[in-house]
Parts: sequence; C-alpha cells; structure tokens
Amino acid sequence: MEQHYDGIVPAAELNERVGKLQRAMQGRVDGALIIQKTDLFYFASTAQQGWLYVPATGAPLLLIFKDYQRACAESAWEQVASLASAKKLPAMLAEYGYPAPKVLGLELDVLPANLYFSYRQIFADAEIVDIAHDIRLVRAVKSLYEVEMIRRAARCSDQVFAKVPEILAEGKPEVAAAGELEGFARSLGHQGIVRMRLWGGELFYGHLMSGDAAAVPSYLASPTGGAGVSPLVSQGAGFRPIDRNEPILVDYVFALNGYCADHARIFCIGRLSDELLAAHEAMLDLQQQMKSAARPGARTGELYEQMITRADELGYGDRFMGVGERRIRFTGHGVGLELDEYPFIAKGQKMELATGMVLALEPKVIFPGRGVVGIENTHLVGEDGLESLTSSPESVISLAG
Amino acid sequence: MEQHYDGIVPAAELNERVGKLQRAMQGRVDGALIIQKTDLFYFASTAQQGWLYVPATGAPLLLIFKDYQRACAESAWEQVASLASAKKLPAMLAEYGYPAPKVLGLELDVLPANLYFSYRQIFADAEIVDIAHDIRLVRAVKSLYEVEMIRRAARCSDQVFAKVPEILAEGKPEVAAAGELEGFARSLGHQGIVRMRLWGGELFYGHLMSGDAAAVPSYLASPTGGAGVSPLVSQGAGFRPIDRNEPILVDYVFALNGYCADHARIFCIGRLSDELLAAHEAMLDLQQQMKSAARPGARTGELYEQMITRADELGYGDRFMGVGERRIRFTGHGVGLELDEYPFIAKGQKMELATGMVLALEPKVIFPGRGVVGIENTHLVGEDGLESLTSSPESVISLAG
Repeated sequence: MEQHYDGIVPAAELNERVGKLQRAMQGRVDGALIIQKTDLFYFASTAQQGWLYVPATGAPLLLIFKDYQRACAESAWEQVASLASAKKLPAMLAEYGYPAPKVLGLELDVLPANLYFSYRQIFADAEIVDIAHDIRLVRAVKSLYEVEMIRRAARCSDQVFAKVPEILAEGKPEVAAAGELEGFARSLGHQGIVRMRLWGGELFYGHLMSGDAAAVPSYLASPTGGAGVSPLVSQGAGFRPIDRNEPILVDYVFALNGYCADHARIFCIGRLSDELLAAHEAMLDLQQQMKSAARPGARTGELYEQMITRADELGYGDRFMGVGERRIRFTGHGVGLELDEYPFIAKGQKMELATGMVLALEPKVIFPGRGVVGIENTHLVGEDGLESLTSSPESVISLAG
Repeated sequence: MEQHYDGIVPAAELNERVGKLQRAMQGRVDGALIIQKTDLFYFASTAQQGWLYVPATGAPLLLIFKDYQRACAESAWEQVASLASAKKLPAMLAEYGYPAPKVLGLELDVLPANLYFSYRQIFADAEIVDIAHDIRLVRAVKSLYEVEMIRRAARCSDQVFAKVPEILAEGKPEVAAAGELEGFARSLGHQGIVRMRLWGGELFYGHLMSGDAAAVPSYLASPTGGAGVSPLVSQGAGFRPIDRNEPILVDYVFALNGYCADHARIFCIGRLSDELLAAHEAMLDLQQQMKSAARPGARTGELYEQMITRADELGYGDRFMGVGERRIRFTGHGVGLELDEYPFIAKGQKMELATGMVLALEPKVIFPGRGVVGIENTHLVGEDGLESLTSSPESVISLAG
C-alpha cells in the first residue's frame, strides 16, 4: 500500500533543494538558519526540533535538540550533531569550520518576535534578513519526486471522494458526516495536520457543509466559510443537519507524507435547482478555459483577471468567489507541504507560472442563503497548461435518498 | 445536547477578563492590542480576523477585518467597527477617543517577526512591550463559567474513552483505530483543531499507540511520542498493527467550544505483564499523592520535585517521564483554550497554584521497546487539592480479543 511509504526524502532531492536556495543567497546572504518545521523537513527530511544551517556555499549542518536519533535516521545529510540550546549555535558553526555569517537569513514571516530577539542576541554581529521569500520561491517549483508525492496524495483524495456517497444522509449533522469521512481519510494514512504558513491561517482536514451553511463567511481566507462548531473554530462543518435538494460542498485536503492535494466537489441528495446546476457548469467551463491559459510564463495576476472577466461574461460576476465586500481576491493557490504556497492566482500578482508548479484552482459561486457550487482540483503546470492530479467526477453528484 | 451550546462568552465574563488584564497593565502599559486568534476569543468571544484594543482603563474596542457581521453576532462588546487594514489602527483609536499609547503591549511570544516590524512602524511613537506573560497569567485562573466549559469537554472525553473498547482490535493499524475514535469525537462536537501556544508545538486530537510505538520519542515536548505517519508528522499513531498483551496508550484531548480536556488511559487486548501492571499502579499512587499536595499556594517546581522523588522511591526513577537524555522535565501543564497554558508542573518553576487553575497531570513510565503505562487526568485546583474532571476508570483496561 502506497501510504506505507516511509516518506524519507532522497539525498539527491535534498542536495538539489539546498543548491537552489544557495544560488538564491549568492552575494546577498552568508548563511540561512532554517527552523520552521515544514521548511526543515523540505531541506533536511526531518521535522525533529532543531536547525539546519545552510551556508552560501558548501555542505549544510543539521543540529538537533529532540529527537537526535530520529533525525539521524530521517535525514540523508552527513553532518548531523546534537545541540541542546540555540545559544551554542555560533560556537557549533565555528567548530564545523563555517565562517561567522555577516548576513544571516531567518524565516521572519513565521518566526515569533521573541525568538527573533533571541537570535539577534545570539548572532549579535550579524545583520539578520528575511529568507522566507527565497525559500518560498524554491519550494514553489516541484521536482518530479514531489509531483509523484502529490499524485499519491491526490489518489488518496480520490478514494475519499468516492466514499462520500456512502456517508451523506438526510438529517445527519454536518459534523457527524465530516467525522466519518475524516476517520476514513486517516485510515488511508492522512497525516491529520494540514499546514498553512500564514499566521492565524488554519484548516482541519477540510470542509463538509450543506446548503446555506457553506455560504456563511468565516475568518478563513477562502471563498467559502461555514458555521463551524463554535465561535473559536468558526469554519467548516457545524451541527446543521444535511437536507435534500441543496448543494453539499465537500472540500478536503489529503495530506500524505507531508504533501497536500486540495479537492472540492458538489453532492446533492435529491436534485439541485436548474439555476445552481447552471452555475456549477459555468465554473467547469471557467476551469476548462484556465487549464489551457495557465501555461509557463503566464502572469498569475492576469490569470486572475481573466477568471473574473469570464465569470462576469457567464453572468456570475456578483457572486463569483464571494459576495460584495466578502469576495476573496484570489481564485487559486500553490500547494505542496503547505496549503498556501506560491504562486497565488490573485489580484495584482506579478509572479509568472513555471513548469512544475502545483496549484489548486477553485472557481466557486456563492449564493447566500442557498449554498455554494463550483469545483476545485489540484493541478500540475506543464508545457500545455494544467494537468489535474485530483480526478473524481466533476459534475454535481446526485444521490438518491 | 450540550455540544450544541453556542459557545458565545457572556458579557459579564468578558468584562471580568478584560478588567484583570487592565489591572495587570496599570502604570506599565497604556494599551494592549490583542491579535492572536485564541487570545482574541478569550477577551472578545470571537476569533474572526481582527484586533481588540484594550486601554489601561475604559472600554475596549473590537476592530474586525473578516467577518465583521459574524464578530458582531459573537461578541458582547458594544464598540465594534469594521477595519480593512492594520495601518489605520492609530487613526481609528483616535477617532474613538483613545489617547495614543506611549507603551503598547503586543503578544510578542506568538506574533511573527515581520508582523512585529509592521506594528512597530504603524505605532512608530510607541514603545512596544510583550503583553503575553500578563495575558497568560490572567488566563491561567479559570472562572466558574470556564470550569463548567471544561467539565463539558471532560464529559465528552469520558464518552470517547468509553468507546475505545469497541474500536481496538488485534491487527488493526494504529492509524485506522485512531481515525475511528477521532471521527466519533468529531460527531460529539469536537472542534478538531487543538491549540498550542508554543511555536512548532502541535497536536492532532491526541495519540493512540500500541506497545513499543508509544515509547518512541518525538519532536513533541511530551514524555511519549509515537512513530506518526511520516517524518513530517512524526508523532502519534502510525501504521503499526495493534498487538495482544501490550499496553495501548490512548491519550486524547477533547476540545469543545474552545475548551480542552486532556485524558489518557492504558488498554490491553489480553493481559499485561505484572511488571507493567505494577508500574501503572505506581503512577496511580503518585497521582493520588499529588491530588492532596497540589493545593493553592503550592509551588509548581516543588510539586515537580516531589513527583520525581516519589517515582524514585517507587523504583521508577530511571524511566519516569522518559529515559536518559530524553526525559521530559515536566509532569503537568495548564489547560484551557490552549493545551500548554500556565501553570507548568516543571523543573525550576516558581509559580504558585491558585484556586481555579486547571491542569493536566500525567505521571507516565516509559519502557523502551515495550511501551508506556501511566495516567492523565484534567484537574481543577480547589481548597483541598485536585478534583479530577475527567473520570473514566483508571486501572489498565483489559479487553478480551
């Protein structure tokens, strides 16, 4: 079974990844200290508590607080040492023969302020700069290995979506259906935790929401929200019972061996109104258009504008990706180890697509008080445009009930 | 059904909480800007994207980016305004008649460095100080309302533990059993997300681990670890099948309406060896002793030392809370909206227990290669010591199979 793959990243991959970061650092940054769990996994194949020091040239050094033996088993890097305290980092770097960095890169987009203050003291002679944008650019373009990992996650996601018809039932609370579906995903090897980089961004598996509940806006940067179970976790499934003849939005992330596939379909017990069915078909049309337009070199901000224009032409301009002030200004986002990776198909973005980027495209129409229709697939950017990695049937799936 | 309670925090409760923070700020901080989602919920009953400005005296101001209408419905505060950008905060505060803060408190333990830089620019004339310790001290002592919320979470947790015998089966992979148990918890209204304050700390529902897998150390600050499903999420349930005659550690958090109850029991299909059974009974003995020792006024660091001494006397000194360098230097932690709240029953801690604190006490013995035994309950600190809020049977639960 593929989910039993051990998830260890091959040495050649790690070398390639660190090499790209080093090229980005040339002449600007002397060394990068990678601390965030997901970045550490990306560059060292371990998420144990520790640090990876990446010098502008030469081999990196992996320093582990807890658990050292696991990190040694997980990471292909040859230089690994046990280190109990960040205070000893400069001495440890010197011991391994690295010159003291004059300019040190840290992940300042995620590192908490108090930790930043400590590192500033520890590296008192260095200028500290933000290395996050460079890291995110490297991570945006997936290797063949990573694409294969995301394909596996997408295949698991297809299995989850194939399970949905067994689980949905009239009168069942959203949260009960969500629990069954999530439990099934977990049995396939879903890692549970879905990572987001944005501070305060968070997702629990995904959303299963029926009728008007899917159209309730939330704190999440997403076109759909959901009631959730309380004012603290006010997104996703709530206690509302699933009803007949309304759109049931199933929007889930499968996270396998670290890699995410994002995927949404519309189900219905009974039959959806012609108006909602037509809106759903319009979103499939929009997706189809983008699949050929989203080629290497296309600017993400322009793709966003094309989608807005096309939604307008199709007659959904005022309900596309939200209503009024609550409209979300993006239609797609990169996925990989995190759910909010580069690139963003969003207003004003200048980044160009490149072969090997993987992104979730999610054209959706919001009908307040009635529900949400639309589609989401995780796609690979190739020479001819987008290839969908998630592949369950795309029309509204009507269930007898 | 209690899980359908709407979770909105009463006005009197919010007033009391903000009043405590204001008393802590007196003469030291002119205003606190609460941004972190959990703190915002604590002080404003909403986790929508936004800010709560708490002046040293007077009424607070709730400013919401997304979603404004939900925040208005969730929060009892009367002054609520819509705000699109942090840059407009000083103008908005002036508009509502607040003097510009000379000393501004921010949650510097969790706020990312880049956001700290922005707020420093936005409030260029203010000195920015860390308000996190004050907030955590206020949050450490629970009100009667909060204790009732944690009691409800604990009752749900008891239901989850009563379900375990139906789910465990010889040969079933840990992760499949975990998925079923987690799906059941979700159907009772579990919020899914379990919050931790520590950067890089994370937990997905909890841990279900069989035999030696429970004794595998992980990146988590916990006496037990687990294989997990990959090197990225290398804690908790993995693909190992559950076996006979070994301890199955079920250590789960139930999070209801924001509030957590933490709870662990040992199950066994068949029969555990006398050596492990004796170690388990020793941990129950240790818990019993702490229940009367942990009274208001007791110093947390001294309670920790008492537990270490007692474990030593009972003959488990070298395996209590971990082995060798991997031993964890705490035996308990506060719980509430987050899993790592004050106080910590930990080496060197000087904090005194107070009536109304709620803490999880988790004496455990680690047998590398064999498994984990021990106990965890969530307790309320009262005049006579600890009252357990979680209440499933405490002995090793043997199942025929």
